[in-house]
Amino acid sequence: MQALWLEEKALQVREVPEPQKPGEALIRIRVAGICSTDLELVKGYYPFTGVLGHEFVGEVMQCDEPNWVGQRVVGEINVTCGVCESCLHGRPTHCENRSVLGISNRDGVFAEYTTLPVANLHRVPEEVPDEMAVFTEPLAAALEILEQVHIQPGERVLLVGAGRLGQLIAQVLALTGCDLRAVARHARQQELLGARGVRTIDEGDLQPGRWDLVVEATGSPAGFELARRCVRPRGTLVMKSTYQGDLTLNMSAIVVDEVTIVGSRCGPFAPALRLLARGEIDPRGLVAAEHRLAEGLKAFEQAAAPGTLKVLLTSS
Amino acid sequence: MQALWLEEKALQVREVPEPQKPGEALIRIRVAGICSTDLELVKGYYPFTGVLGHEFVGEVMQCDEPNWVGQRVVGEINVTCGVCESCLHGRPTHCENRSVLGISNRDGVFAEYTTLPVANLHRVPEEVPDEMAVFTEPLAAALEILEQVHIQPGERVLLVGAGRLGQLIAQVLALTGCDLRAVARHARQQELLGARGVRTIDEGDLQPGRWDLVVEATGSPAGFELARRCVRPRGTLVMKSTYQGDLTLNMSAIVVDEVTIVGSRCGPFAPALRLLARGEIDPRGLVAAEHRLAEGLKAFEQAAAPGTLKVLLTSS
Repeated sequence: MQALWLEEKALQVREVPEPQKPGEALIRIRVAGICSTDLELVKGYYPFTGVLGHEFVGEVMQCDEPNWVGQRVVGEINVTCGVCESCLHGRPTHCENRSVLGISNRDGVFAEYTTLPVANLHRVPEEVPDEMAVFTEPLAAALEILEQVHIQPGERVLLVGAGRLGQLIAQVLALTGCDLRAVARHARQQELLGARGVRTIDEGDLQPGRWDLVVEATGSPAGFELARRCVRPRGTLVMKSTYQGDLTLNMSAIVVDEVTIVGSRCGPFAPALRLLARGEIDPRGLVAAEHRLAEGLKAFEQAAAPGTLKVLLTSS
Repeated sequence: MQALWLEEKALQVREVPEPQKPGEALIRIRVAGICSTDLELVKGYYPFTGVLGHEFVGEVMQCDEPNWVGQRVVGEINVTCGVCESCLHGRPTHCENRSVLGISNRDGVFAEYTTLPVANLHRVPEEVPDEMAVFTEPLAAALEILEQVHIQPGERVLLVGAGRLGQLIAQVLALTGCDLRAVARHARQQELLGARGVRTIDEGDLQPGRWDLVVEATGSPAGFELARRCVRPRGTLVMKSTYQGDLTLNMSAIVVDEVTIVGSRCGPFAPALRLLARGEIDPRGLVAAEHRLAEGLKAFEQAAAPGTLKVLLTSS
């Protein structure tokens, strides 16, 4: 089958064997999405060799449990051991022996087919089209914020960064009723936020130390610096991005201001699908382009351009 | 009156005018304690000129409210404006216009007398002797951890650093019933922990990523590094120290492991006094020496030696 293969920072479209894993479902990829993590993997920030990609919606072609066959599904990306301390304590996304779809020790979804254990699969409700379902994974990551932090409706919340993930975070935060503002660099980002009723704010207008909760979604040290500056004493700073290299921070100021910093990664799929099915979240405006898998390199080039939102890949 | 005066990193015993502030109580200092913050102020980490010191127990000599006169008191160190956003939202220790006893814009307690607003004062119960009451402020700071974080009795908790503040933190954490271990460098620190039934653990025996909650109380980058390494995925790292200069950290690992970092500073006096009165906390073992104010420089020299616990000053 055709796949987007990453090896030593070089991405190529090439033929690879169809995947087959005993006990796992074989899934034909319908649509896949390119995420910032994919771009970072290509840059070599994390070592990975294999088929890239972890955001997808597909159809189960083969499965030991026959009632899954023919189902349209999305899949959780962490494949877990079930027996380590993290798994046994209800933290499967932190499984010590996990492989991660298209990220770590497991081929991903920029291909015609992938495999996943049935335990990772979620049926996609009929009313959720592929172009929405493909956002389930990043939407779940955005919802992880609500799993970790209680956002009160009366709180002042600032989102720094309104890219691919930031847009979904904005929609999720808006559901809480909080007093939300977003810092967005690009006109298209601002336009999309406006269409969802989320107000933007210029960096120059931000009063320091005034926000109950700040979500950092830029992945840049400058974005972190801004987010840190804006959080109020005893406020919370949610870190939704990874960073190239180490960050330097004034930890004494964190102590004196009693700020809480919360790292946030993968989230729950079931509520993401519920919100998509109810139409409470609609990510379709984020789609910047759709390419066929054969044009994967072009798709990556486009996704890497500053301000580009979601680039989708179709396998056929 | 006699006082320990700090000016341009030089500490001296000198005569200063007796303090007088309209609307504030005049307090005669009975016993005061030297804290790491005092040592850092002398090193010039924060700019401060004036009478040093913020841990004390004293007696009210003059006050607009006559029933305070003659009372034995301890005092909260943040003097607040009552009208800023932090004050109005119930975060007085973060008052934007605060002065801080012996730390910022307000003369402290290494003197014969000090002044504080009545609102800052707490009566010391009869059953709490001066040598315990003088620990109220740092004990309150230790209790701030319980204000911020819910420690479940079944949790594995690690304390890194068992100095002046660390010893009080250990006693506070032990009250929760949690599975507590402490990393302590000095024999006297280990001995004191042992006397309270708190088990120590060697750095070499620490398994990384195994602790639900880790409290950093060393103030050193190496201590932070160790604490960070020990916290489990989705665990909490409480920062109880300030640091000279910036800290560098791998924020991506914080995100991937979904660690929560909580800065923690001043805490509640009333529960500190309750615990002292009940004998649940007994800090008297921490007293390394007691000096008269006139020997303040010698006291500071002693307090600065590695592993020294609490050095007290008496004004008479």
